[in-house]
Amino acid sequence: MSSQIAIQKVSQPKPKPNQAELGFGHFFTDHMFIMDYTAGQGWHDPRIVPYGPIEVEPSVMVFHYGQATFEGLKAYNTVDGRILLFRPYANAERLNVSNERLCIPPIDPNFTVEAIKSLVEFEKNWIPAGEGNSLYIRPFVIATDPYLGVKPADTYKFFIVLSPVGAYYPEGINPVKIYVESNYVRAVKGGLGFTKTAGNYAASLKAQEEAKEKGFTQVLWLDGIEKKYIEEVGTMNVFFKIDGEVVTPSLEGSILAGITRDSTIKLLKSWNVPVNERRISIEELYVAHDQGKLEEAFGTGTAAVISPIGELNYNGRTISINGGKTGDLSSKIYHTITGIQNGSVADTFNWTVEVK
Amino acid sequence: MSSQIAIQKVSQPKPKPNQAELGFGHFFTDHMFIMDYTAGQGWHDPRIVPYGPIEVEPSVMVFHYGQATFEGLKAYNTVDGRILLFRPYANAERLNVSNERLCIPPIDPNFTVEAIKSLVEFEKNWIPAGEGNSLYIRPFVIATDPYLGVKPADTYKFFIVLSPVGAYYPEGINPVKIYVESNYVRAVKGGLGFTKTAGNYAASLKAQEEAKEKGFTQVLWLDGIEKKYIEEVGTMNVFFKIDGEVVTPSLEGSILAGITRDSTIKLLKSWNVPVNERRISIEELYVAHDQGKLEEAFGTGTAAVISPIGELNYNGRTISINGGKTGDLSSKIYHTITGIQNGSVADTFNWTVEVK
Ligand SMILES: Cc1ncc(COP(=O)(O)O)c(C=O)c1O
Ligand SMILES: Cc1ncc(COP(=O)(O)O)c(C=O)c1O
Repeated sequence: MSSQIAIQKVSQPKPKPNQAELGFGHFFTDHMFIMDYTAGQGWHDPRIVPYGPIEVEPSVMVFHYGQATFEGLKAYNTVDGRILLFRPYANAERLNVSNERLCIPPIDPNFTVEAIKSLVEFEKNWIPAGEGNSLYIRPFVIATDPYLGVKPADTYKFFIVLSPVGAYYPEGINPVKIYVESNYVRAVKGGLGFTKTAGNYAASLKAQEEAKEKGFTQVLWLDGIEKKYIEEVGTMNVFFKIDGEVVTPSLEGSILAGITRDSTIKLLKSWNVPVNERRISIEELYVAHDQGKLEEAFGTGTAAVISPIGELNYNGRTISINGGKTGDLSSKIYHTITGIQNGSVADTFNWTVEVK
Repeated sequence: MSSQIAIQKVSQPKPKPNQAELGFGHFFTDHMFIMDYTAGQGWHDPRIVPYGPIEVEPSVMVFHYGQATFEGLKAYNTVDGRILLFRPYANAERLNVSNERLCIPPIDPNFTVEAIKSLVEFEKNWIPAGEGNSLYIRPFVIATDPYLGVKPADTYKFFIVLSPVGAYYPEGINPVKIYVESNYVRAVKGGLGFTKTAGNYAASLKAQEEAKEKGFTQVLWLDGIEKKYIEEVGTMNVFFKIDGEVVTPSLEGSILAGITRDSTIKLLKSWNVPVNERRISIEELYVAHDQGKLEEAFGTGTAAVISPIGELNYNGRTISINGGKTGDLSSKIYHTITGIQNGSVADTFNWTVEVK
């Protein structure tokens, strides 16, 4: 199918950003992928074109009624000079899960991966060198009808844009302080919590800002119904090692089914580490801590891979986990996944897809 | 302040649409209002410019993280040739309520109303003649940073666009059939339900589509926690007349504080009709119906003003309200509010603001 992708090249490539100033999500490559959807016609006109501003009507439905879904994954330069994607089919399938809930037409996952591969191949000089650096890939869909009425749109645009990003831990993996949110709610069962849709992130901003002001990196969400069960952290799923067993909140419809979460579970099983997907309350976690059984805590997500949690604050009570240091298991998962991504660890799960 | 609004006129006005084909939200006038926000500088450069496409980066934050708020109100031609807005300060203030929750900087409500008045005055030839027709006013704010990271943006744009719209009831006010939703959830306390933000409407689409397929006009939402208490209908608040008393769900944080809702409550009080803002369960409503006490049900909102509910379906059981006909009280509220809006009923509440 990739042969169907029309290509329009920039006349003058942009200068590449300095590696030291990459950060996350600030720079974009020379080209992007676009495909249109029109009711009755389906998805059509896939193309790679120069990255740049697009024209939309002020009445474009996405501004008003929020039909917008997205994905996030990365392309990695390997130690032996290849380019790898990590589980791109999982992202392509999750995009359709989001689309289905948001009444957005599905996109053939094989074609999504083809489009990602074509664009990354085309922009391969943009994958930054340097350990931990990578090319962030952002596929996203927006409703484009110029119409003010609450209904699913008849026209959409599917984009893929690429952003060279710096290492998440330039000075080594580092535990964070997390605030357990018991006032604001991110999502509830029956709503959009399991999708990657713009509105979920809008809903998270205020709690996140208030937590930052109090000196925390992120918020740990509790369920919206009883404000009791642990959900997820910012843009990460969350895991706890309690008395030798790893526990992570089960997928009940209000949290994202993270791909790093799934990879972590599969790795743990392959290592014969007991892992349990179930509901876990914040009280249970604090009791485990008080009994000396809370051994490690960490978030999982594409951006950081593993983000150890060194401290939690719930209702004014702070607990320190593993002395505020990165646990052995967290560290092992981190090095295994990043190793698979950069080609230094054997990919026994067949997770990577080479771009060539 | 209106003198600060720069004006750039179109060279060639568009032809006006045919009155019969107006519908809702399809046509836009010749001009729109825009104002920019830049962190450190505040809101700046208010201007009226030709209505037309705007340029945004594909990485514009609103597409990805949904920081987007809006309002909806109307300008009416009166029977005696004036132009009236209905409670525009209430919309301007509610926009700030939404902005505050979404971490969007507030806009001086007086200036918002000034901007609305200036734009409507400028476009007054676009207010359609004909009973029930009006000019729909859509103020909205979007985050415009070209940046992929979950945080409040540093730049925003505030727009006001105008759309000539047809009468909601060209053939007279007409009761609708409503499906009581017990699977999907629109919003929950602690979330964004009380704001007018894009994501709330995205969350409502799937339930609405499924209800339409079953032959219903709209969905009546239940609370997201117990799926028991009545919330609101689509883009309307909801009222029930039970045994002589009017009941409407209290504002608990998960529904919009509708301006038509507030006007309805104030009118009822002025008529000495008992009105009670409280939690009301769907069971209670069905019991009231079975006891012959459910006299009327109606939705309230800017688009329709009053939308009588003729039939409800909950868990497979259908009830008919007031024999499927518009109730006397619903009708009286409808004619009073629309009368105030078109100048045929005295505005004893000082709700209207003249544009001149
Ligand atoms: C809300 C949320 N939870 C969890 C995750 C982690 O998902 P993944 O591991 O697929 O990156 C993300 C990031 O994508 C997210 O946005
Ligand atoms: C979700 C929702 N509820 C209620 C309303 C009714 O509000 P108002 O009477 O201010 O138009 C609207 C429309 O604005 C709405 O979008």
